[in-house]
Amino acid sequence: MNKSQMREAILAAKQSKGMSWEAIGEATGMSPVFICSACLGENSLLADQAEKLCGVLGLPGEVGAALQVYPEKGQRYQEMLSDPLVYRLNEVVMVYGETLKEVIQEKFGDGIMSAIDFTMEVDKVEDPKGDRVVLTLNGKFLPYKRW
Amino acid sequence: MNKSQMREAILAAKQSKGMSWEAIGEATGMSPVFICSACLGENSLLADQAEKLCGVLGLPGEVGAALQVYPEKGQRYQEMLSDPLVYRLNEVVMVYGETLKEVIQEKFGDGIMSAIDFTMEVDKVEDPKGDRVVLTLNGKFLPYKRW
Amino acid sequence: MNKSQMREAILAAKQSKGMSWEAIGEATGMSPVFICSACLGENSLLADQAEKLCGVLGLPGEVGAALQVYPEKGQRYQEMLSDPLVYRLNEVVMVYGETLKEVIQEKFGDGIMSAIDFTMEVDKVEDPKGDRVVLTLNGKFLPYKRW
Amino acid sequence: MNKSQMREAILAAKQSKGMSWEAIGEATGMSPVFICSACLGENSLLADQAEKLCGVLGLPGEVGAALQVYPEKGQRYQEMLSDPLVYRLNEVVMVYGETLKEVIQEKFGDGIMSAIDFTMEVDKVEDPKGDRVVLTLNGKFLPYKRW
Amino acid sequence: MNKSQMREAILAAKQSKGMSWEAIGEATGMSPVFICSACLGENSLLADQAEKLCGVLGLPGEVGAALQVYPEKGQRYQEMLSDPLVYRLNEVVMVYGETLKEVIQEKFGDGIMSAIDFTMEVDKVEDPKGDRVVLTLNGKFLPYKRW
Amino acid sequence: MNKSQMREAILAAKQSKGMSWEAIGEATGMSPVFICSACLGENSLLADQAEKLCGVLGLPGEVGAALQVYPEKGQRYQEMLSDPLVYRLNEVVMVYGETLKEVIQEKFGDGIMSAIDFTMEVDKVEDPKGDRVVLTLNGKFLPYKRW
Amino acid sequence: MNKSQMREAILAAKQSKGMSWEAIGEATGMSPVFICSACLGENSLLADQAEKLCGVLGLPGEVGAALQVYPEKGQRYQEMLSDPLVYRLNEVVMVYGETLKEVIQEKFGDGIMSAIDFTMEVDKVEDPKGDRVVLTLNGKFLPYKRW
Amino acid sequence: MNKSQMREAILAAKQSKGMSWEAIGEATGMSPVFICSACLGENSLLADQAEKLCGVLGLPGEVGAALQVYPEKGQRYQEMLSDPLVYRLNEVVMVYGETLKEVIQEKFGDGIMSAIDFTMEVDKVEDPKGDRVVLTLNGKFLPYKRW
Amino acid sequence: MNKSQMREAILAAKQSKGMSWEAIGEATGMSPVFICSACLGENSLLADQAEKLCGVLGLPGEVGAALQVYPEKGQRYQEMLSDPLVYRLNEVVMVYGETLKEVIQEKFGDGIMSAIDFTMEVDKVEDPKGDRVVLTLNGKFLPYKRW
Amino acid sequence: MNKSQMREAILAAKQSKGMSWEAIGEATGMSPVFICSACLGENSLLADQAEKLCGVLGLPGEVGAALQVYPEKGQRYQEMLSDPLVYRLNEVVMVYGETLKEVIQEKFGDGIMSAIDFTMEVDKVEDPKGDRVVLTLNGKFLPYKRW
Repeated sequence: MNKSQMREAILAAKQSKGMSWEAIGEATGMSPVFICSACLGENSLLADQAEKLCGVLGLPGEVGAALQVYPEKGQRYQEMLSDPLVYRLNEVVMVYGETLKEVIQEKFGDGIMSAIDFTMEVDKVEDPKGDRVVLTLNGKFLPYKRW
Repeated sequence: MNKSQMREAILAAKQSKGMSWEAIGEATGMSPVFICSACLGENSLLADQAEKLCGVLGLPGEVGAALQVYPEKGQRYQEMLSDPLVYRLNEVVMVYGETLKEVIQEKFGDGIMSAIDFTMEVDKVEDPKGDRVVLTLNGKFLPYKRW
Repeated sequence: MNKSQMREAILAAKQSKGMSWEAIGEATGMSPVFICSACLGENSLLADQAEKLCGVLGLPGEVGAALQVYPEKGQRYQEMLSDPLVYRLNEVVMVYGETLKEVIQEKFGDGIMSAIDFTMEVDKVEDPKGDRVVLTLNGKFLPYKRW
Repeated sequence: MNKSQMREAILAAKQSKGMSWEAIGEATGMSPVFICSACLGENSLLADQAEKLCGVLGLPGEVGAALQVYPEKGQRYQEMLSDPLVYRLNEVVMVYGETLKEVIQEKFGDGIMSAIDFTMEVDKVEDPKGDRVVLTLNGKFLPYKRW
Repeated sequence: MNKSQMREAILAAKQSKGMSWEAIGEATGMSPVFICSACLGENSLLADQAEKLCGVLGLPGEVGAALQVYPEKGQRYQEMLSDPLVYRLNEVVMVYGETLKEVIQEKFGDGIMSAIDFTMEVDKVEDPKGDRVVLTLNGKFLPYKRW
Repeated sequence: MNKSQMREAILAAKQSKGMSWEAIGEATGMSPVFICSACLGENSLLADQAEKLCGVLGLPGEVGAALQVYPEKGQRYQEMLSDPLVYRLNEVVMVYGETLKEVIQEKFGDGIMSAIDFTMEVDKVEDPKGDRVVLTLNGKFLPYKRW
Repeated sequence: MNKSQMREAILAAKQSKGMSWEAIGEATGMSPVFICSACLGENSLLADQAEKLCGVLGLPGEVGAALQVYPEKGQRYQEMLSDPLVYRLNEVVMVYGETLKEVIQEKFGDGIMSAIDFTMEVDKVEDPKGDRVVLTLNGKFLPYKRW
Repeated sequence: MNKSQMREAILAAKQSKGMSWEAIGEATGMSPVFICSACLGENSLLADQAEKLCGVLGLPGEVGAALQVYPEKGQRYQEMLSDPLVYRLNEVVMVYGETLKEVIQEKFGDGIMSAIDFTMEVDKVEDPKGDRVVLTLNGKFLPYKRW
Repeated sequence: MNKSQMREAILAAKQSKGMSWEAIGEATGMSPVFICSACLGENSLLADQAEKLCGVLGLPGEVGAALQVYPEKGQRYQEMLSDPLVYRLNEVVMVYGETLKEVIQEKFGDGIMSAIDFTMEVDKVEDPKGDRVVLTLNGKFLPYKRW
Repeated sequence: MNKSQMREAILAAKQSKGMSWEAIGEATGMSPVFICSACLGENSLLADQAEKLCGVLGLPGEVGAALQVYPEKGQRYQEMLSDPLVYRLNEVVMVYGETLKEVIQEKFGDGIMSAIDFTMEVDKVEDPKGDRVVLTLNGKFLPYKRW
C-alpha cells in the first residue's frame, strides 16, 4: 500500500466516521495540523502513533505500515498552487519574504527559521466583521555555521 | 524618486541612525513587520504615516511621497527564493499547503484566508535548546460567493 | 465519485436532456455561469443546491455529494491556455492588467478586486456588424490593511 | 522618444496637473481605460487624439509622436503577475476560463470573443457592505471560419 | 467518444480506404487543410459536413457527433515542437515575427491578422532544383478599437 | 556599430525620409519583407546590397558594414510573443502545426519545408467585409536522408 | 501498432537474437546509427528497408508498417537530458555552439549545417590512455536565401 | 579586463588584421576551433599560448591575462538557441541523443563520452550537389565506476 | 522487466528480509551507497554482482537481468527536488557551487571533478549536540584538453 | 558598498597579493572553503573575522562592513549551472539524491542533513592514475518534529 492508496483509505474512513481533523487530533493526542499532514502523506508517524490512528478510524494494519513510511514531501505543490487558498499563502511569502528576512535576522542574527524542527497551528477567531484565520508557525532558529 | 531609490535612502538612514525595525515601529506607532514591508516597497503608507516615518529617520519629503505610491508587489520573489530563509517559508507552503486547505476549510467552510485584510507578527521565544521564531499570520476568512 | 467523474456524469446528463446552462440556471435559481463552474468542478454547491441540480438533471445522490466537495481550483488552466477563446481572456489581462491597476486604485485606493466575493455574467448583445459578447465582472473591493 | 520615456513624461505631467484618468478621459473625449492604456504604452492614438492629450497635459510634440507609434503589447505582464490586483484578474481566467468557453460557445457557436474589437469599462458601485468594482468587457464575437 | 478516439477512428478509416487528405477534401467539398485539422481535433464541423465526411469514410454516427464538438485547440503544440517540420514553422515566426508586424501594420494600420477568420492552403510547386512547399495564409485584418 | 545600433540608425533614417518598406524594397530591388528583416537585424546583406540601402537612406558606411555581419537570429522572439499580432502567427502553428505535417508529408514524403531556402511575401487583398492579409511562405522541401 | 509498441517489439527481438546495431546495420545494408534511430522511432524506413529489417529480426509485417510511418521526432529529449551521456552531447552545444557558428560561417558564408540532409557515424578508436569515441556529423551547408 | 571585454578586443583586432580563425590557429599552432572558443571566452589558455595569440593579433598584456582566467562556460547558450545554426546542432541531440546512447554504450559499455577530454574539428567537403560541413567530435570514453 | 518493476521487486524483498542497505552492501561486497543506487535504477551492475544481489535477497533471474541494463539516469530528480532532504543537497550546490569552482580550480587547474569516475560514502558521526551526517564525494580531476 | 562591489575589491586584492584561498584561510584562521564563500558573497563574517581578512588583504573598512551584511544566498546558481564543474555537482544530486535519502534516513530516521549547521572541505588526493578531488560535507542531522 503506497502513500496515495493510504490517503484514500484514511479520507474515506474519516468521512464515513464523520470525524473532523480536530476530533482525530484529540483522540490520538496529536495536533490536528500534524495528524492531517501525516494522513495526506506529508509526514510519517511512529509505530504507536500509527496504531492509535488506525484504532480511532478502524483501519487495517497496512494503513498503519504506510503511515510509518518516510514520505517524499511536497509532491502536490505545483498542482495545489492554482487553488486560491494555497496561492494566498504563497503570496504572503512573495510579498513578505524579504521583510521576514529583515525582521527575523535583525532579531536573531544570520540564520533561518527551521521548517523541520517546526510546528504549526490553525485557530479560528470569531469577529463580527468576519471571522479570522490565525496561523501560528513556530520554528527553531538555526544560525549559519562559520568555520 | 522611485520605490527602489526610496528603499536605498531609507535603509541608509536606518543604518546611520542605528535604529532597528522594532524601534522604528514603536516610534511610528506601526507594527515592525508592516513598516519594514512599506520601506522595502511592498506596501504603501498614508500621508501622515509617511510623514511620521520621514521625521523619525530624518528623510526628505520626496521619500515620503514615494512611500505613498501604490507598489507593484512581489517583484523580488524569484530572486529571494534561492535564499535559505525565504525558501524555508516557501517549503512550509509546499509541504503543508494541502493540509492547511483541509483544516481551514473544515473549520470555516469553502473559502480562503485573505492576504489583503491581513496582519503578521514575528516573535522571539527564548528556549535553552535553541530560541524559536514564532510567526503569527492573521487573515480574514472570505467565503466563496455562490450566485 | 471524484470531481472528474462527477463532471462527466453531469455533462452526459445535460446533453441527453438537451438543456443549456441558461436553462439549468433558471431551473435551479442560480446564475448560468456559476452553476456551470460548479458542474465543471471549479466551485462547490450547498446541499440544497446540489439536490436541486440533481433533480433537474435526474442524477443520483453521489453526484450531489461530489458537488458539495470543496474543489482544488484552476487545475485545467495550463491546458486551456492554448485555446484561442481562453487565450483572448488572458490577453486582456496581459495588455490591460497594469491599466486596471491604475484605474481601479485611483478610484478605490490601494487594494484589490476580490475574486472570491465575486460574481460574473455573460450576455449576448446583437449587433448588425457582428454580435458582441459582454462579460460583467463584479468583485468586492478589498483595501490593503495597514497595521 | 520611446514608449518608456513617453510613459514617464505623461505620468509626471498627470501628477503635477493633479488630473485623474477619469478627468483626462473626459477632457479628451475618450474612455479613461483606453486613454490610460495608451499612456502606459499598450495602445496607440490617432494624430488628433495624441494632440488633444498633449494639449490637456501640456506635453511637447515628441510625446504626441510617441503616442502614435504602434506598441509591442503585453511587455510588462510577467512583471505585473506577482501583484495581487493583477493576479486576481488572472485567477478569474484560471478558475472560470473553461466555464466561459462553455457558456459563450453555447450562446454564440464555435468561436471567440475578440480582444481587438474590444472595449472595457471600470465602475464603482457603492455598497454598505463594501464598495464593488464592476468591470465590463465588450468584445465582438468572431466565429471560426470553415473552408 | 472523445476527440482522441474520434481521431484514431478517422485515421484508421482513412488508411484502410487509402484516401489522401486531398481526396477527402474533394469528396466533401472542403479544403484538405481544413478537413484534416477537423479530423485531428483542431476544428469542429457543422452537422452536414460531419455527415458527409462519415459517408465518405464509412464511419458511424458517433464519429460525426464527435466532429461537431467544439475543440480545445492547440493541445498538442508543446509535443509537436520538437519535430523538425513543426519547429521550422515556429522558426519562421521567431525570425520574421517582428518583420511581419512592421510590414503588415505599415500596410494596414495598428491591428492584427485574424487567426479565426482565417484560411490556409498548401501547394506543391515542382522545381528542378528541388520541389517547393508554398503555404498561403489568408486572414482578415482587424484594427484595434480605440474607445 | 552593433546590430542594435544599426537598427536604430536605419529606423530613424527611414522615418525622416518618410519611406515605407515597400518603397525601400523597390529602390533596392529586394523584397520589402527581406529588406525589412535585414534592417531589423534578422538577416545579413551582401556588400552591394548594403551599399545600395545606405545610398537610398543616406546612411554612413558603418551601417553598411553592420548590415553584412551574420546575425544571431530570433533574439527578440520571447519579447514579441506577448504582442497580439505575433501571437496570432504563433497560434497558427499551435493549432495547425500537426495538420501541416500531415498535409505536407502526404504530398512530399518524409521531410521538412526549409526555413533557410525560404522566401515570404505579404499582400493586402481589399474586401468590402474587411481587407485581408495574405502571407505566402515558400520553402524548399528537404527530404530526410536515410543512410 | 504505434511507434512505441514497434520499438518494444524490435528491442525484444534484437535482444533475443543477440544482435548488435552494428550487425543489424550490416545485415540490412544501412548505417548502424541510422537503423538504430529508425528502430527507436526517430526516423522512417522505406518499404523495402523495413521489410529487410523485419526479415533479419524475424518480425511480423505490422512492425514493418510501423517503421514506415513518419515519426514525430525528438519526443524523448527532455527525458533523456538528465542522463550523463546525453547531457555531455548537449554540453558540447552549450560550450561550443557559438564557436561552431563562427567557424562554419567563416568557411561557408551565412547559413547552416542541415540536420535533415545529414548523416552521422560512431567510431571507437583504441588508445592505451583510454579508448576514444569519435562522432562524425556530416550535413549539407544551406546558405540563407536573400530575396 | 573581464572575458566580455577581452572578447570584444580580440574580435576587433581579428577584423582589422583580416585574419580568419584558420589563420590564427595556424599562426599559434592550435586548432581553429579551440582557439576560437578561447577567444569567445569558453576556454582558457596557458600563459605561452596567450602570449602567442596576443603577439599574432598585436594585443596588449591584459588581454593575455584575461585569456588565462578560467571561464564560466556555456553562459550564452540560451541566447544562441534561437539561432538556426545552433538550433540544428541541438536538434541533432534531440533526435539522435537516445540513438547515440544505444550505439556508444553497445560498443564501449556503461559510461559516457567525455566533453572535457575532448577535441573537435570542422571541415569543408566540396560537393557539386552542395558543399558539406563535417564535424568530428573526439572524446575519451569514461566508464561508470562501480564501488 | 523494466527498471521500475525491478525496483519495486527489490524494495519489497529488502523489506520482507528486513535487511538494511548497509547489510546488503556487506553481503555483496559493494558500498551501500552504490548498491542502493543500482537497486533504485540509477546504476547498472555487472553480471556477477547482479547474481550476488539476487542471491542475497532471494530474487529471480529477471531481476538480475534488469540490474544489468544501462539506465537512463536522473529521471526522478524533478520529482525529488521538493523533498527537504534532497533540496538541502541541492542548496549546497546553489550556495557553494561557485566557491567549489574557485577552490577546486585553484588546487587543480582548469577542469572538473568527474561524476563518472566517482564514489560516495555516507557516515554517521555521533555528537552529543546532535549526530552529524558526513558525505564523502571522491571524483577524479579531469583537466580541460587544449588542442 | 554592496556585495558585488565587495567581491570585486576582494578578488582584485587577492590577485595582486598573489594569495590562494588556502593561504587566506590559514592567515585568518578559517577554512578556505568558508572564507572563499564569504568573499564571493554567500556567507557573512563576524566583525573581528572581517577585520582580520581586511588586514590580510590590505582592504579598507567599507569592505569589512560589506562582509558583515547578511547575504541573499544562491543568486548566481542559475548562471553557474551551465558550467561543467558546477553541473557535475548538480548531477551528483540528480543521480544520487534518492539514494542519499534512502541511506541517510535508514541510518538516522526521518529527517534531513542540515545545510545551515554545515561545514565542507575540499582535499586533493594525489593518484598516479589521475589526482582526485575529495569533498567532505558535514551537516547536523535534524529529525522532523511530530507534534
